[in-house]
Amino acid sequence: MASKNKLGIIAGGGCLPGLIAAACRAEGRPAHFLALSGHADPTVISAAGLPTDWIRLGEAGSGFESLRRAGVEEVVMVGPVRRPSLSELAPDFRTARFFARIGLKALGDDGLLRAVVAELESEGFRVVGIDQVLSSCLASPGLYGGPAPDVQAEADIARGIEVARALGAVDVGQAVVVQQGIVLGVEAIEGTDRLLDRCGRLARDGTGGVLVKLKKPGQDRRIDLPAIGTNTVAAAAAAGVRGIAVEADGALVLGREAVAEEARRLGVFVVGVTLS
Amino acid sequence: MASKNKLGIIAGGGCLPGLIAAACRAEGRPAHFLALSGHADPTVISAAGLPTDWIRLGEAGSGFESLRRAGVEEVVMVGPVRRPSLSELAPDFRTARFFARIGLKALGDDGLLRAVVAELESEGFRVVGIDQVLSSCLASPGLYGGPAPDVQAEADIARGIEVARALGAVDVGQAVVVQQGIVLGVEAIEGTDRLLDRCGRLARDGTGGVLVKLKKPGQDRRIDLPAIGTNTVAAAAAAGVRGIAVEADGALVLGREAVAEEARRLGVFVVGVTLS
Repeated sequence: MASKNKLGIIAGGGCLPGLIAAACRAEGRPAHFLALSGHADPTVISAAGLPTDWIRLGEAGSGFESLRRAGVEEVVMVGPVRRPSLSELAPDFRTARFFARIGLKALGDDGLLRAVVAELESEGFRVVGIDQVLSSCLASPGLYGGPAPDVQAEADIARGIEVARALGAVDVGQAVVVQQGIVLGVEAIEGTDRLLDRCGRLARDGTGGVLVKLKKPGQDRRIDLPAIGTNTVAAAAAAGVRGIAVEADGALVLGREAVAEEARRLGVFVVGVTLS
Repeated sequence: MASKNKLGIIAGGGCLPGLIAAACRAEGRPAHFLALSGHADPTVISAAGLPTDWIRLGEAGSGFESLRRAGVEEVVMVGPVRRPSLSELAPDFRTARFFARIGLKALGDDGLLRAVVAELESEGFRVVGIDQVLSSCLASPGLYGGPAPDVQAEADIARGIEVARALGAVDVGQAVVVQQGIVLGVEAIEGTDRLLDRCGRLARDGTGGVLVKLKKPGQDRRIDLPAIGTNTVAAAAAAGVRGIAVEADGALVLGREAVAEEARRLGVFVVGVTLS
């Protein structure tokens, strides 16, 4: 984060927008929130103390306007955005023109977000990845904390990688839970916490499973990188999952030290794996 | 079903074992149940009134023995079998030898069932597909009942086929729910009813989604063909799903008339689609 130009943060859900804001403050970089109502968490946004405009997803016109008015040059999109239905969007004129151009199919999965990136760039903004702003959060290879994976865990991780890649290749979810070679669950839009909760109830007796989170093979690094935090470690432990494998250089680990500490405390491994 | 030799029915869950038994009775073919305890439904099994042996999944030795004693030559495996954990299996000597040979990885997904087929054949049984015994249940192309799919439904079906194929190629689930181009959920081992229930809660406003069920691309037709029945139509309607597409010549529609009637009654389309 060498440049000190003003960063526009298009904020979806979770605590990532807050972490980005804190990183900007730490290095004296000016920043401005464009918070998506119904997605961004008002507590996280207000706690960050940045100048903020709230917009609906369908208000691209006023959104671009407020970024420009704030003097933003670079934009980062962070935090999950629940994919909307057309009626939830209720697009303004600018947004309607955008949808007329990209077509409705872009509403599926990452298609919409990819189109938003292209649109921001055509408006003259530079869109950067969260890993360029928060480089310390990009997963590194090796064990973060908890017991080292044994042979069965390694086999379950390998199976999870195989399935997550196949799913990612058709632009669906990023997470899979595997126990003793059996795929307990596959994530679509429900989110990792619900996936873990469901798999906890489907788990077999004996050795617990693993959660695998990967970037999709063709995924633009600037949108929606898979992320885990201390909450993910806690949810895994509650579901009887004994470890989490994330893609090194492809997923975000939010708070390296805190995640490692929670992993040790709960006896759940967290490991960064390099894909071959 | 030309041959009148005795059919061994290895019975998992649901009502399929009962349908097979009824089909045998209708044409005077002798049959014998090998019912898997913890998987087969005792009500379905006893209502069928066939000679029955109950075994645990881990008791292959006594299972083969009772089929042979009953004079069975042909075997069909029907109804879902929840994949077991090793400790649930508690294998007998014969079964332990089997696992020692196929290795633990076969416990994943269809691997186990494929190995069971091979094992039955090496013991001299002929393993046939349910579609050979219940040919009237194999899905045919075209509309069974309910309103014809519109353009959005056709697009959702196409997306569902794309995702289900990718998932099937790595030997995971057979069902996907898509709404307005968005993949709401993907089935692993939870079963279609739970998938539908979850997707009902994740659905967006506006036009409802579709359920797509396909045979896995490399799937042995003799194991675990995807199936729908009137209960699937009712579960779809309850989840706000407006139609079901099944693979023509690859999925089972249990009770053609009853399914068509339920589809009309609830206004949910059921259609057999031919994969290109």
